[in-house]
Amino acid sequence: MLTLFHSPLSTGSRFIRLILGEYGVATQLIEEYEWARRHEFLALNPAGQVPVFLDEYEIPLSGTFVICEYLDETHGSVRQENKLFPENPLDRAEVRRLNDWFLNKFENEATRHIVRERIYKREMPLSIGGGAPNSQILRNARANILPHMNYLNWLCASRDSLVGSSLSYADLAAAASISVLDFLGEIDWEQTPAAKDWYMRIKSRPSFRSLLTDRVRGIVASAHYADLDF
Amino acid sequence: MLTLFHSPLSTGSRFIRLILGEYGVATQLIEEYEWARRHEFLALNPAGQVPVFLDEYEIPLSGTFVICEYLDETHGSVRQENKLFPENPLDRAEVRRLNDWFLNKFENEATRHIVRERIYKREMPLSIGGGAPNSQILRNARANILPHMNYLNWLCASRDSLVGSSLSYADLAAAASISVLDFLGEIDWEQTPAAKDWYMRIKSRPSFRSLLTDRVRGIVASAHYADLDF
Repeated sequence: MLTLFHSPLSTGSRFIRLILGEYGVATQLIEEYEWARRHEFLALNPAGQVPVFLDEYEIPLSGTFVICEYLDETHGSVRQENKLFPENPLDRAEVRRLNDWFLNKFENEATRHIVRERIYKREMPLSIGGGAPNSQILRNARANILPHMNYLNWLCASRDSLVGSSLSYADLAAAASISVLDFLGEIDWEQTPAAKDWYMRIKSRPSFRSLLTDRVRGIVASAHYADLDF
Repeated sequence: MLTLFHSPLSTGSRFIRLILGEYGVATQLIEEYEWARRHEFLALNPAGQVPVFLDEYEIPLSGTFVICEYLDETHGSVRQENKLFPENPLDRAEVRRLNDWFLNKFENEATRHIVRERIYKREMPLSIGGGAPNSQILRNARANILPHMNYLNWLCASRDSLVGSSLSYADLAAAASISVLDFLGEIDWEQTPAAKDWYMRIKSRPSFRSLLTDRVRGIVASAHYADLDF
């Protein structure tokens, strides 16, 4: 059976789950905490990071972009319609640029610090950096959210999808990224109404359902997290 | 004319220059220092990072992976032979995994810190972080080189190319990464003989020539940097 090693609050993991949902590919999910550096997991991916996808021959594919391109080549490109990559190479480049923006840049400037400080450090042993959140790191990371949300709001203001005229990987990447922060109640939606409308549409897709029922040990999702009309 | 905004010691820029060299695509090079945050450059790429490639209509493509995939779709995939991506989706995934390893992981754990501390900080104004190198950062980054070189050595020990039976983007990504450190004399080649043989072969390719004549203000390349037999 196809298998995805993931973490519920990993943006890249959520992105791959959304793609699998869009393609209707049934996949077994195994939860993995990178910081635990589990031996069997490191054998699959020496970089020690989620997501890792096992194909039907149990060959491991590591890394968000690697898995995305693989799923596109094996599932997306053979579709007659509702492809998640546009046809034009320039539009495809724009999708990849936005994937990188939301899955790497936004992640490294905000999301991953907030997840680490608020969630992972409570579970991690002191010896590997666990303990109370560092309020300075949290403050810096939180200050970086609004510029990214403003950029998304600007992208959403003039069109229904981030690239081209229909849903693409870029929408899923941005939504995956935002869903983590929204789960943690870190997004002030009043400031970015166009982004809010766009997110409501993406969140209503069937592929999003499994993300909305995620549970994370010791954490209650923000009040509106699973509401489709918030 | 096609244009590449690059930095001589940026691994991603070197990787794209190697691809352009392999495909014989004549491209004007414009040197850009990210830390200067030049207004006209930020207008091309709001992320402020090299490489940025301008296509024939002067549409900017930003980011190493974005440009690589675009060049593959517009030049690589139409070739009859000497393609830089293997045909099989699993092999392509392995190429992308190694690209990510050398262009992101190795870069973030070692190369970019060494370049910043040794080179960029000498040119940067004090107000944005310029000044003397931080010896602790340099020491940490240098300690990370050997594990990556050992991994490369292990990959090279059993085969001529990193993925499949012929040259791929993975070889160019790894070589781009190593060429920056080799320029700065940071690699102890005696420890990794299989990686050394592999690098000598890649370095002898015509696509590598322009990299070997790079000059960086105020820096003399390591003695063997441009030797094809070192």
